[in-house]
Amino acid sequence: MGKTVDLNADMGESFGPWVMGNDLALLDIVTSANIACGLHAGDWDVMARTMRAAQKRGVGIGAHPGFADLQGFGRQRMTLRPESLSNLVRYQIGAAQAMARAEGAELRHVKLHGAMANMAAEDEAMARTCYEAVLGVAPEITIMVLAGTAQQDAASALGCKIACEIFADRAYNDDATLVDRSLPGAVIHDPSEAAMRVLNMVQAGAIITTSGAHLPTRIDTICLHGDTPEAVEIARAVREKLEGQGVMLAPLKGAPL
Amino acid sequence: MGKTVDLNADMGESFGPWVMGNDLALLDIVTSANIACGLHAGDWDVMARTMRAAQKRGVGIGAHPGFADLQGFGRQRMTLRPESLSNLVRYQIGAAQAMARAEGAELRHVKLHGAMANMAAEDEAMARTCYEAVLGVAPEITIMVLAGTAQQDAASALGCKIACEIFADRAYNDDATLVDRSLPGAVIHDPSEAAMRVLNMVQAGAIITTSGAHLPTRIDTICLHGDTPEAVEIARAVREKLEGQGVMLAPLKGAPL
Amino acid sequence: MGKTVDLNADMGESFGPWVMGNDLALLDIVTSANIACGLHAGDWDVMARTMRAAQKRGVGIGAHPGFADLQGFGRQRMTLRPESLSNLVRYQIGAAQAMARAEGAELRHVKLHGAMANMAAEDEAMARTCYEAVLGVAPEITIMVLAGTAQQDAASALGCKIACEIFADRAYNDDATLVDRSLPGAVIHDPSEAAMRVLNMVQAGAIITTSGAHLPTRIDTICLHGDTPEAVEIARAVREKLEGQGVMLAPLKGAPL
Amino acid sequence: MGKTVDLNADMGESFGPWVMGNDLALLDIVTSANIACGLHAGDWDVMARTMRAAQKRGVGIGAHPGFADLQGFGRQRMTLRPESLSNLVRYQIGAAQAMARAEGAELRHVKLHGAMANMAAEDEAMARTCYEAVLGVAPEITIMVLAGTAQQDAASALGCKIACEIFADRAYNDDATLVDRSLPGAVIHDPSEAAMRVLNMVQAGAIITTSGAHLPTRIDTICLHGDTPEAVEIARAVREKLEGQGVMLAPLKGAPL
Repeated sequence: MGKTVDLNADMGESFGPWVMGNDLALLDIVTSANIACGLHAGDWDVMARTMRAAQKRGVGIGAHPGFADLQGFGRQRMTLRPESLSNLVRYQIGAAQAMARAEGAELRHVKLHGAMANMAAEDEAMARTCYEAVLGVAPEITIMVLAGTAQQDAASALGCKIACEIFADRAYNDDATLVDRSLPGAVIHDPSEAAMRVLNMVQAGAIITTSGAHLPTRIDTICLHGDTPEAVEIARAVREKLEGQGVMLAPLKGAPL
Repeated sequence: MGKTVDLNADMGESFGPWVMGNDLALLDIVTSANIACGLHAGDWDVMARTMRAAQKRGVGIGAHPGFADLQGFGRQRMTLRPESLSNLVRYQIGAAQAMARAEGAELRHVKLHGAMANMAAEDEAMARTCYEAVLGVAPEITIMVLAGTAQQDAASALGCKIACEIFADRAYNDDATLVDRSLPGAVIHDPSEAAMRVLNMVQAGAIITTSGAHLPTRIDTICLHGDTPEAVEIARAVREKLEGQGVMLAPLKGAPL
Repeated sequence: MGKTVDLNADMGESFGPWVMGNDLALLDIVTSANIACGLHAGDWDVMARTMRAAQKRGVGIGAHPGFADLQGFGRQRMTLRPESLSNLVRYQIGAAQAMARAEGAELRHVKLHGAMANMAAEDEAMARTCYEAVLGVAPEITIMVLAGTAQQDAASALGCKIACEIFADRAYNDDATLVDRSLPGAVIHDPSEAAMRVLNMVQAGAIITTSGAHLPTRIDTICLHGDTPEAVEIARAVREKLEGQGVMLAPLKGAPL
Repeated sequence: MGKTVDLNADMGESFGPWVMGNDLALLDIVTSANIACGLHAGDWDVMARTMRAAQKRGVGIGAHPGFADLQGFGRQRMTLRPESLSNLVRYQIGAAQAMARAEGAELRHVKLHGAMANMAAEDEAMARTCYEAVLGVAPEITIMVLAGTAQQDAASALGCKIACEIFADRAYNDDATLVDRSLPGAVIHDPSEAAMRVLNMVQAGAIITTSGAHLPTRIDTICLHGDTPEAVEIARAVREKLEGQGVMLAPLKGAPL
């Protein structure tokens, strides 16, 4: 046994008068919070509020940078020159560092958001550009990567601290990609099924695909969602199942792969 | 003489495809650059470009935060809750710190922009909110204040490093406020007149008002403008006059008042 | 009775991925919808969706322009030059007209939002600037005004179609201003109390103040809110009470005062 | 000759405090102005100012809608759902209609901007989505299309008024596409060369390619640029050459192809 994993979720995605998600419920479940940095979601007030609440509960604070596209929530793919992509990422990391510092906390990890994350999962050079930008301003930070993707390859090559992530509620293909959302079974809705899947993967040290194949991987963190009541239930079920089976839950330490 | 002063100017105020000012010309004249932080002007690319150019020339890099009002260029007065004002300022300082770090530089000073600066010059509590937010994330930074205003009072009370600023091209009233722009003589357009005025004030250690009164003040830095060809000429004339009279020009060191 | 009134509510205040309010529930209750125009809330997709839903239910479509301040939801007071204020209002009205036309509908009324509304309620010249801008591009539109305020004075002087509005859930002072929200009783939370108040005012043809005074006014429309479950209940109670007492509910016709 | 053509240029691309181009110089040369609508460039004040200046000179006022991407100046390709693209276009057309109406003018034409234009030149379905959205709110408007592209095919199929456009300062390939900017000779810098080319194409009723091939096309309007001093010279040279050779210059009438 002796296994330890982190539970992470995106949060701080409210903006101005608009509320998104149920951050306080999630903060009682997760051990790491990926906090939007004001360009695709979040603003300075939301960031401060969310970081304070995370800090108070001992939840690890991370930055969740994305493309500068508020209306599209950072889901629109954009083609930026590498230098511009670096600047965009640095800007967000720096803002998040200062907001964390003001709460007496420290930025412990970074996870890319939306289209930026999807593109980086497919394109190692782009992932590397993002991660180098991050490490240039936060050398000790842990990079959270989607296990088995170009994100992981890019971060491994940089020799930085890495946290390999799997999804609690998404089915996997045999090549470690996610089953397309339009296909049946792509998203797991049943809390106990999701919890059991996560436990199995953590104990196996592998992604378990829809065909039953095992793809060995280090599993450092489990991605949970929180934008629906169901999602919070899944999050809770995963936590309880892991704790019940002796898996320890703790914020990321981060170590090179 | 042995006197040393800093010459500062706002820059990095371009945005996306739009160019403002003549930053490269100014960077060859000033010793400190107040760089917009992306909310009233500037963006991550402009910030990176401007900081790189400043760093290359040994010009001190500072943050120039303002209200989040791009179309209004941060000139619209806004009433924010103190906590929200703090968050707004911190966000910009943090972003600027990271952008500077990525250029191998460090944020040396901060100067408030536009309506935020004007409000802080009149309202010590508001100035204090801004400056405490800055110092909370950048304790060693120098706060650039308008000499003789509530900005100076607020910074003095905080015991932080301060740089007292006077204007090269604006006439002063006897209460140390600026002569209203709508009045004749409010703005000095003649380079040699501006240069002589600055020299006189630096040598006197005082603001010299339109009535000829001397208002003693520490003078650490001279504010230059650069948005017109004339402004660049004034900047150059001020620099030459000061150097010709043995005043040393150097980036801010900053010391408590 | 023979009396007819309109019930209005603000809607279309979602933005991008963020949902605000319960527009569909409200659209089954109100007879006029004040739809945000994309600058303080709403976007082209939200506008289209909201207008389509309103049109389908025979609810009158109106524009709800505000200051260009998304994060602040148009609640920040801004001082604009009159010409700039006109342009800002026209832009929003034009956009809303086109979106309505694309749904086979027509813009029937306009109501100012947030800080723009508050400032116009106090400042007749500012209200006039806004309303003239509206009428310049939509001469037949009905201007919805807060009864007893400078908004009403400005619209009356313009001789345009006017709808005088009272609030269902806010207590009134003897000078027709609203009781400050920080005072007890300022906001009515009980649906049946709110409904009875509205009925009394409609039947009296007067605002009834907290002291019991009657301030005679034409009452064309009742402002309902919809952002809380309670608010939807109040809206429903007002509608049922008025209908039960023979008051007819219908979208605005609009007539000069 | 008896030939009549229109000269068009993009303008109104300033934003807030930032100036772009030399609109007043261009307005003395062109007969149609493509005016940005506030989402990729321009704002309500710039629109009003530019339309007023155009109207005063008898220059035809057109809308120049683009993607909502201010920092990227609408040059970033975005993949939107067709309904969302329609809404985006309608919003801008409506806003521009109202701004024009307020100046006593009328929107006479529309021309897509930047990435939206480039995508529509390649993708007839996308072009059709944009043009149907425009025509749904402005049925009598003239659609300005890049001659020989999917823009032209889409507009032709809709049976609307069309203006076929060629570039004054860009070389053409034999398939009517523009020579890539990175290749030598892609952009014509010499005013008299540009002017002669335009005259030849107008007289031939054909695009003349770099190989000398003639691709017959209706030529209704010539696209001029204005963002550099050179560009204004080219614009002036084209105008003088055409006038000198008896080609009449007049704003678009627009007729189906």
